[in-house]
Amino acid sequence: MYRRSLIRATSAATRTHGNNNGTLVRHKSMLREAVSSLGAAVSKGAQNDKKYQAALKSAAKLVEPDTPVKDPFSIVSKEMSTLVHNIGTLLGSGHPTLNKVAMYYFQSEGKHVRPLIVLLLSKALSAIPTEERDRGSRDESDVRSLKEPHGAGIDDPLSPLSILHGVNPDIVLNPLSRPMDELPTESNGILPKQRRLAEIVEMIHTASLLHDDVIDNSASRRSMPSGNIAFGNKMAILAGDFLLGRASVAIARIRNAEVIELLSTTIANLVEGEFMQLKNTAVDTTSKANRASFEYYIHKTYLKTASLMSKSCRAAAVLSGARDPVVEAAYQYGRNLGLCFQIVDDMLDYTVTDRDLGKPSGADLKLGLATAPVLYAWEQYPELGDMIRRKFDHPGDVERAREYVKKANGLERTEQLAVKYAEDAIRQLEVLPPSDSLDALKHLTKAVLNRKK
Amino acid sequence: MYRRSLIRATSAATRTHGNNNGTLVRHKSMLREAVSSLGAAVSKGAQNDKKYQAALKSAAKLVEPDTPVKDPFSIVSKEMSTLVHNIGTLLGSGHPTLNKVAMYYFQSEGKHVRPLIVLLLSKALSAIPTEERDRGSRDESDVRSLKEPHGAGIDDPLSPLSILHGVNPDIVLNPLSRPMDELPTESNGILPKQRRLAEIVEMIHTASLLHDDVIDNSASRRSMPSGNIAFGNKMAILAGDFLLGRASVAIARIRNAEVIELLSTTIANLVEGEFMQLKNTAVDTTSKANRASFEYYIHKTYLKTASLMSKSCRAAAVLSGARDPVVEAAYQYGRNLGLCFQIVDDMLDYTVTDRDLGKPSGADLKLGLATAPVLYAWEQYPELGDMIRRKFDHPGDVERAREYVKKANGLERTEQLAVKYAEDAIRQLEVLPPSDSLDALKHLTKAVLNRKK
Repeated sequence: MYRRSLIRATSAATRTHGNNNGTLVRHKSMLREAVSSLGAAVSKGAQNDKKYQAALKSAAKLVEPDTPVKDPFSIVSKEMSTLVHNIGTLLGSGHPTLNKVAMYYFQSEGKHVRPLIVLLLSKALSAIPTEERDRGSRDESDVRSLKEPHGAGIDDPLSPLSILHGVNPDIVLNPLSRPMDELPTESNGILPKQRRLAEIVEMIHTASLLHDDVIDNSASRRSMPSGNIAFGNKMAILAGDFLLGRASVAIARIRNAEVIELLSTTIANLVEGEFMQLKNTAVDTTSKANRASFEYYIHKTYLKTASLMSKSCRAAAVLSGARDPVVEAAYQYGRNLGLCFQIVDDMLDYTVTDRDLGKPSGADLKLGLATAPVLYAWEQYPELGDMIRRKFDHPGDVERAREYVKKANGLERTEQLAVKYAEDAIRQLEVLPPSDSLDALKHLTKAVLNRKK
Repeated sequence: MYRRSLIRATSAATRTHGNNNGTLVRHKSMLREAVSSLGAAVSKGAQNDKKYQAALKSAAKLVEPDTPVKDPFSIVSKEMSTLVHNIGTLLGSGHPTLNKVAMYYFQSEGKHVRPLIVLLLSKALSAIPTEERDRGSRDESDVRSLKEPHGAGIDDPLSPLSILHGVNPDIVLNPLSRPMDELPTESNGILPKQRRLAEIVEMIHTASLLHDDVIDNSASRRSMPSGNIAFGNKMAILAGDFLLGRASVAIARIRNAEVIELLSTTIANLVEGEFMQLKNTAVDTTSKANRASFEYYIHKTYLKTASLMSKSCRAAAVLSGARDPVVEAAYQYGRNLGLCFQIVDDMLDYTVTDRDLGKPSGADLKLGLATAPVLYAWEQYPELGDMIRRKFDHPGDVERAREYVKKANGLERTEQLAVKYAEDAIRQLEVLPPSDSLDALKHLTKAVLNRKK
């Protein structure tokens, strides 16, 4: 309930901001309004008063900006605007059909939130004085001007191209994987490898979307037919594999052992997360089982969503040369933000219409998935255990589960959990020196919490 | 025709060898027999006499062993026998179902020819005197005894495990990806990283089998139901992704930039090959089109089969520290062997029964695929062009195409092509010093050429 007020306030603030094209002049007053309407909503008759008051306090603290916040996108808009083009170059397929399928999800109006996080964090890390970035060496080896003749650049292969492509690239009939010849330049304090990292992260994410949509038989995504529907299962599987394959090459070219390892583990993590989700919770109805199911849910959520965000944040910090505490904080920021992101997603599945979401809402229960709202309700209503175990497949199960969620304030408690992760994420950012991009990261975290779709 | 005689001779020789459990004492006389029956077969009335005589000469030279040949498997039997177990450890999934699907193709009676090649080549490379292996450093850094306390071993992560797995590995509920804690030891002159390479290569190959079988709707493989049939498309896709993900981690841990790059490009190559195969040749009926189709076919064959073999051979040589000409020869050996392997496969699809092949034979034409036999026939019978373009989908096309292949000696010419690649492969091995494993590599090449399934 108070969430809607927050959303209203935030979107009003964003509109104002949009008109001003600068800092959020009316930000504070809008937020004050939001907080007071929040208070009204809560006092009007919400249950679990203490918890509500605590959540309210957290939320109020959370939306209080440290300084007027610049639009997060505007800070890295140059880098974001070339992202999709650069990914197209990285794919480098000579065949239009394979290209088209692989690029399908990039070109639809995606949020690109993962690369945005990587770029903002990289920029924020650049505010750390160089002399304090002495963990190993700050990895600038790929800056164009430093490129060595024997090819140490991020786009230069170590082995001859004729070997990597299996043919002489000059005479190839139909060059499927072209050399990766377009290097992102250092820009705005963001290192070339950090820009490449942002591209790789989006490629891995998109590959997993393509395969998940085949596996889940999804019909739509981002208000468009999903890849499997638009191109068929075969092409969706192939395009996903192709994205993974090209991402692997790009990861290898980063040539930083720690970063390579971090990124390569994300691929298996995503699969494990999807697998855990397919398997779902199979448990008895004791309270211990409920606890275990919740831990299972959080672990699944880490693997499916937070792993890629946390490891790419850590990788950005490793590349910056920042010291261990900063590297660790970057990881924890990504981890908490990722968990918050997915928990909000699971909540939106209950509250938002198909049209706003861009994909069918209320899908989780129908797919048999027990996410946070229903797991919270189960704590209070043990009879939900049976429905969860049979994956809501008896007639009326889905509707009954929704009723229980409502009665047990499952959505409100889920929201409190998301708020907690958002707060933990923001707290991690304290290790970074003040900067516009730091503020933008905080703003982004709040936007993740308050988004409507 | 002479091929069958060769096969008979080879399998007789193998039987003898099997009984003796040692070197092939009766090898030479068996081969002499084969060559003379070959001559008889040819003189009896084969067409294209000159070509036959040339092929005969090649074949005779080819099967003449330099020294009595040890069974290729026996030389690396210890390493081969632990291969599947080691891959199981690398997968390290804590979940039985995911494990079962991912391991399904490993446990069926597979040929494991790719890891066998890597291991034999690694052993053969170890016969090069150490002082001649000075290209970069011979990569022994991962030998157990050399493991450094901060974790430079092949199985030691650079980042803490709690980060790579997203949870404290000690308290994890259901540890999906366990640490990779079982290191292959140096054995038999084969370096730990070369053994790991053999495992990775089989993992990548198996992942591509799982996905290809979903894409092609295959029903059986290796005389068993294919993965998609046994476990469903969902699990087959996930298991393939999981294999790729875990292979990526294992590749990263090899920590040799050149090897990482070589292996990471194979994944995209496999996809491109499968894609080119799906797309097939779409051309007009001029002789230029025929030429282009043949080049397309060879390129597709490289990507789909020879890329993984050639790059893993090159990687084995890089790890050995051997000089550039040896590294290049290792690559060319794998490339020619891989092309030979697939061309023989395409021939067997025409000649062998379902039962012998372990999968439906005659599948290529039914799938609309134009491989070497039909492309050769097209040279002689331009009317085949139309059928190729429509992917043999008119009633009677498949049967008519088979007739043309027969009339044009398409299979014989395909065999000559396979012989040429086998010869080229064996010629590359001349850079290596004499050794049992070198002989075994030659023997293996001949076995690839002469296999019946």
